[in-house]
This record gives sequence, C-alpha cells and structure tokens, in this order.
Amino acid sequence: MLQPIRIGLCGLGTVAQGTLAVLRRNQSEIERRIGRPIQVTRVGTRSDKPGVDLTGLQVDRNVLDVATADDVDIVVELIGGHDVAKDIVMNAVKAGKGVVTANKALIAVHGNEVFKAAREAGVMVAFEAAVAGGIPIIKAVREGLSANRIQWLAGIINGTGNFILTEMTEKGRAFDDVLAEAQALGYAEADPTFDVEGIDAAHKLTILASIAFGIPLQFDQCYTEGISQLTPLDIEKAAQLGLRVKHLGIARKTDAGIELRVHPTMMPKDHLLSNVNGVLNALHVQGDAVGPTTYTGPGAGGEPTASAVVADIVDVARTLTADPQNRVPHLAFQFSHLSEEPILDITQVETGFYLRLQVQDHPGVLAEITGVLGGHGISIESLVQERQTEAHDSVPVIILTGSVQEQKMDAALAEIQGLSSVHQPAVKVRVESLS
Amino acid sequence: MLQPIRIGLCGLGTVAQGTLAVLRRNQSEIERRIGRPIQVTRVGTRSDKPGVDLTGLQVDRNVLDVATADDVDIVVELIGGHDVAKDIVMNAVKAGKGVVTANKALIAVHGNEVFKAAREAGVMVAFEAAVAGGIPIIKAVREGLSANRIQWLAGIINGTGNFILTEMTEKGRAFDDVLAEAQALGYAEADPTFDVEGIDAAHKLTILASIAFGIPLQFDQCYTEGISQLTPLDIEKAAQLGLRVKHLGIARKTDAGIELRVHPTMMPKDHLLSNVNGVLNALHVQGDAVGPTTYTGPGAGGEPTASAVVADIVDVARTLTADPQNRVPHLAFQFSHLSEEPILDITQVETGFYLRLQVQDHPGVLAEITGVLGGHGISIESLVQERQTEAHDSVPVIILTGSVQEQKMDAALAEIQGLSSVHQPAVKVRVESLS
Repeated sequence: MLQPIRIGLCGLGTVAQGTLAVLRRNQSEIERRIGRPIQVTRVGTRSDKPGVDLTGLQVDRNVLDVATADDVDIVVELIGGHDVAKDIVMNAVKAGKGVVTANKALIAVHGNEVFKAAREAGVMVAFEAAVAGGIPIIKAVREGLSANRIQWLAGIINGTGNFILTEMTEKGRAFDDVLAEAQALGYAEADPTFDVEGIDAAHKLTILASIAFGIPLQFDQCYTEGISQLTPLDIEKAAQLGLRVKHLGIARKTDAGIELRVHPTMMPKDHLLSNVNGVLNALHVQGDAVGPTTYTGPGAGGEPTASAVVADIVDVARTLTADPQNRVPHLAFQFSHLSEEPILDITQVETGFYLRLQVQDHPGVLAEITGVLGGHGISIESLVQERQTEAHDSVPVIILTGSVQEQKMDAALAEIQGLSSVHQPAVKVRVESLS
Repeated sequence: MLQPIRIGLCGLGTVAQGTLAVLRRNQSEIERRIGRPIQVTRVGTRSDKPGVDLTGLQVDRNVLDVATADDVDIVVELIGGHDVAKDIVMNAVKAGKGVVTANKALIAVHGNEVFKAAREAGVMVAFEAAVAGGIPIIKAVREGLSANRIQWLAGIINGTGNFILTEMTEKGRAFDDVLAEAQALGYAEADPTFDVEGIDAAHKLTILASIAFGIPLQFDQCYTEGISQLTPLDIEKAAQLGLRVKHLGIARKTDAGIELRVHPTMMPKDHLLSNVNGVLNALHVQGDAVGPTTYTGPGAGGEPTASAVVADIVDVARTLTADPQNRVPHLAFQFSHLSEEPILDITQVETGFYLRLQVQDHPGVLAEITGVLGGHGISIESLVQERQTEAHDSVPVIILTGSVQEQKMDAALAEIQGLSSVHQPAVKVRVESLS
C-alpha cells in the first residue's frame, strides 16, 4: 500500500462541503481504485459553517497557510474569485504541491500564468470541476478525443441560464419572471449577471477552446451576449419554424481563425442539445475522426462538482510519481506547440440569422426588405408575415437568412432599419444547424 | 523531444485502415498533444487490401511476428475474435510491450487472464475502442467518475440493433424487413446473431460492469435476450403508453448482488436514451455524487473506432515511463480490491413488466387475470383492453405491472397462461424508469 495522499482544502462553501462529504462517504471505494487512502489533513476557512463536522482536521483561519503546509500533498482551491484564490494556487505551485481547482474565472483569466508556474515547478494543476460540473468533459476532450482534430464544439454550459430558457420555452413565461423564481429556488445568484449575461459560460468556453484547439487562454477575446433580452414571442416564433433557443457557447476552428462566442442561438428542435432542459449542461464535440459525441449531466451543485474535484485529486495523486515530461499537458497540447491562430471578431463569424422586424402594413414593404437583403447577397430561407387579425399600423415579419458573415448582416440590417416603413429596432438571433 | 513511439498494427480491416488514416492525417496534431511522434513501423496482415498504402511499413504475413518485433513499442490488435488475437496480445504482453485492442470479445471472455499477465509484466493493455466505439466511456467511468460509487448504468451499445429498432419504431416495419435493409447497408453482418441477439452488447456490458463496480469480468453470467422477437405491434402499444423500446445493456449494484443483463427494455419516451436513434450509441451512468451523466456518439465504424484506438495509444505511450504501481488499473479498481459480489440470476432481478395477453372476449376474464396478479402480490399500473371493432374470439389485453422480481412475474404468468380464457403465449417485456 502506498502512502496516504494528504489534502489541504481551501474554502468551506457548497463545493468544499460536497468534497468533504464525498471523500468521507466513498473513502473505501476511492481507495479501492487508487490503491492508497486520501486523507484531508487541513481545511482553510475564515469561519466555521454550522453542521460541517471538522473533527480531526487542522483548521487554518488564514487560508493561505494551507497552500504551503508540510502535511499537504495536494491543495484543493474551492474559494472562487481571482484574489485569494490566485495567491493560494500560485503559492501551492511554488511549494511544489499538486493543485486541484474548480475556479473557472481563475483558469480562464490567469490560467496561462498559473500553468507556466506549474510547468516550471513540475506539478499538475487540475481543473475538471471548472467546466460543466460533474461531466468529465475536460478529460474527454483532452484525453478521450486526443486522436482528433477538434472541428468545433458547442455547449449548454450554464445551468441557471438553461433553467430560465427552458421555463420561458415550455411555459411562455417572461425572462424577469423566471429569473425571480430561479433566485428563490437558489439556482440563480442575487446578482445574476455572471450567469445570464454569459460571463460564466465565456469562462468555461475559453477553457474548452484552449484544450480543443491548442491555443492559449484568451478570455478577453470571447464574444459574450446574454439571454436577458430574449422574449417569449421570439422563442415562440422560433418554435413555429422548427427551432429551439438555447444559450450556447460555441468554439469553432476555421481557416481564418477561431470563433469563440457565447450568445442565444436558435437550432433545430430535434438536435440533442435542444432537448437538454432545466439545470442540465451538455456539450457537443465534433472531431474529424470520431464525428459527433455529446456529454450531458449536472453542471453545478455541491456533490456533482465534488465528483470532478475528487476525480482530479485521484488523477493528480497518480502523477505524483510520473515523469513530468510525459504527463497529459494542462491545456492538452504541449506548451511549446500552442498555436497563435487569431480569435475572430464576432463580425467575421458566419451564421444564419433570425430577424424579427416590425413593419408598416402596406404593399411593397416586403419587396423593399428582400431587396436590401438581396443587394447584400444574403439569401432568405424562410419569410413569415403575420396575418393581421385587427387593424394595426404595423405587423411583424420574421425572416430566416442563409449563412452570412455577421458584418454583412449588420450592414444590411442598418439599411433595413433606415427604411421609413420599418418601425422598431430589429430582433436578431444567430441560427446554427450544429451538424 | 522524446523518442518516437513505434506502433505494430495487427490486422488490416476497417478499424485498422481507420487507424492508419487517422495517424497519418492527424500526425502533427497528435504530436502537438503528446510531444513525440507516433510512427507505425509494422503491419501484420495475411493479405494486402486494395487501396491501402503500406509504403515504408514492414509487412508481416505472420501476424504473430508483430507482437514480439524489436522495433515495436506498442502492439495494436485489430484482428478480432479469440484465437490469433489472444495469442498476439499475450505474446506482446510477455514481451513487455504496451497493448491496445478494440476486441470486446477478447476482453470480456479472456480479460482476467490478459490483465493478470499485464500486471505481472508491468505493461498496460488499453481497450477504450472495445466499448461504444469513439465515445470515451471507459475513460469517463474509470477516471472521470472515480469519486463515485456507480449505482447503475444503462446503454444502447449496439448500433445495428438500435438502427433496426429505430426503423421499426418510426416506420412500423417488421424486424426481418429492417434487418435485410441493414445488411444491404453494411450496418449488419451476414450472420447478424452477435448484434441482434445481444451477444456483442453483452461483451461490452460485461466490461462496463467491471470498471463500474470493481468486479472480475464475468461474461458467462450476463443474461442476454435479443430483439428478433419484438413486433411492431408491441412497439406501438408501448408508444401509446408513453414508452419507447430500446435494446439496453443494464448493470446495477443492489444489496443482493449485481444485475448484468441485455434485453429489450421499455422506458419513458422523454428519457435521453429514448431519443438516441439510428446507429448511435449512448450510455447513462448514475453515480452517487455526480448523479446522472450521459454519453452519446458513434459506436462503430472505421474512424470513430480508430479515434478510441489512437487515444489509447497516446495514453499507453504516456504510461511507458510511469510508475506501474501508480497507474490507472486496467479494470479501474486495484486487482487486490476486486469484489466477489455475486451476479444475480435474471429471475432475481426486479423490474416492471409490459404484458400482452390474447384473451377470450367474455365477461370475467379480466377479473381472473387481475386476480392471479393480485394473488402473487403484483400491482397493476395500467391495463388496456382493446375495443373490439369486429367479431373476434379473442382480444389483446395490455398490462403494465409495478416493479416485481422476475421469478414472481414468471410464476404469475404461468398461472395466467393456464387459464382457459387466455389463448396465446404472453408477450413479456421488461420496463425501466431509468431514473
């Protein structure tokens, strides 16, 4: 039997509590797998939590003490945020300890610096829990699909947003109404910005794109658009056209560069991702050899996230005796072989578009609009003009376009909105076939 | 840069050709990941294949020569079957070489012996491609979910069978009719027994159960029932009850022992697995920490399977310098910690049941049948008697039972079939909620 692996746990929130619970409950099962005990020796927390049993553990009120403690082999950072969390990880790495973190913001924003320090120290920093909670998607892309050129990936990677969209879709409810419920249920934070405006998803997508394509982490290059502007009306119109609306993170390798974008997306209603509802997460990964594979599961929560944290602890424990040169690289690709391909600006990205225009109900208006689109070389896949049941000045027109570069679409749309017969600002949602 | 990894490829069928193609096409991408070149040095094949370029490779007509060649670090066995394939793998292991195989029959039937030899020699035998083609499900269960007690898993793990069932379901076609088409399309073998009678699925399920629960491979204990007896009528009746029919492999840990069974299964039509159609495979894995995760993708085919073969080559290459004691164990759990829990006989397994009885259309017959079920303590969740539109001696009665041990169900059914008012042998299909 090998020596026990000694864990120093930083933080005592939901995921940390889940990690303690899983390590305790499944101690024997995990030991059967790894061939050695995993033993939490220290917990760093500024204050105790009611109901959390810390018997037998050294409790450090200064969380940073855990990072360098002699009786810790692997430091598990579950504090979140950038400041203290970064200090913990960097200090642990410099002290030659393995690190496990669930901190997507830290990895997406400071990962290049963290992994550089880890390479220099010859230690692993594992972050499976940072993306899609309990779904082992980092491992799947980084190791399971290592034979492939990953062509693109698309995912529902924020459970709060998916819960809200599912409710809006299934019950026709308004965004604000569902958000309030999600907050009451504990699915959404008091400040929901990170979730509903796509920042959390952009953190995760940034990480996925790096391990898929072998590029440095470039969070600041990720295009991010939230779901707070979506209306039940557009969700319903999309459904009538056979489309479902999801808040997707999409990363795609093209000849011109890499697309990296989070935004509401309409896609065929029978696609697997269209049928992933509620707080579930799901990733579709397209590889040139394997084709499409899809991964679905709980993207958040104490024990689902702890599942990934503990799997990382097991992985890092296994590397403690492995030749550092021969390990799986942090970002899947050897550091010396990362690529400098540019991230494309959203204006350079090609997709289809759903447009909803509010127009004056007089003959010739459709001809004007389709004329502008045609003039910009934009094809129309579908056009629906609502039948007027009462007297109105204006009626909605729904248009699905063919695939077109966004800057062309925007130019055409600016011209359309300058027409005297077009009333309101248009609604524009990107459409993907995801096939 | 580390030394190149030298590959000896045994076999030149579809998967071997896919492996050569992927290694050639993605050479630079794979090298970016692993930090060293992978170089195929030898191919063992009794005969050349038209259109397969073997320029620069040593071709061995005696396939066994590859297993022990000095210029081979990793032997890739893609011959299939038990005989020559087993000799290749055992010889390679004894020669101290890493092994990658896609051979589910070999692993399910001879795996215990193979892994014993591999432990003694300190080498890895990798087999991701043996289960569900390109879906990295072995890695997900063995490493990604290592924090969990796996409670159960259920999967669509034979693409041919799923194609046939999908066609029967969507178009109401008969089994024989769709099988003939599947054979014409190349989805089904001339002798379809392995696929449609569940033997192939049982091989894969046997492997999955071992890595999920930490038990030795016990293929001979797997209950196996095919889909050839299913009728469009029962698929349609199931649909009317909100159920979908799939050919599932199910492994479940219970207090009494482990369920290991492949059979047609009815389940709720909105379950993710119910919506995996055509030749796709999918696995639902239920862990105590993570909850449900689902994995979907192509379960067969040259390049999808090659994706798993090449990922295994990368993994094995990485372990060549790793401390053998600290590697991921072949069957996920340390050999010394495998469990001797019994595999349950199918008669001991509890499920719900769909029953279709053909009964005389006279008053009192339903009372007789429900009386027998009640006498055996079997609850009825749903009972549908078809309305008679013409004069018939007999009418079908469809019953969904609550959960009951199969031996109780069989005893009740024997009694029901002894009733003078019950005509034909009953149709019995197991029903699972999979939640």
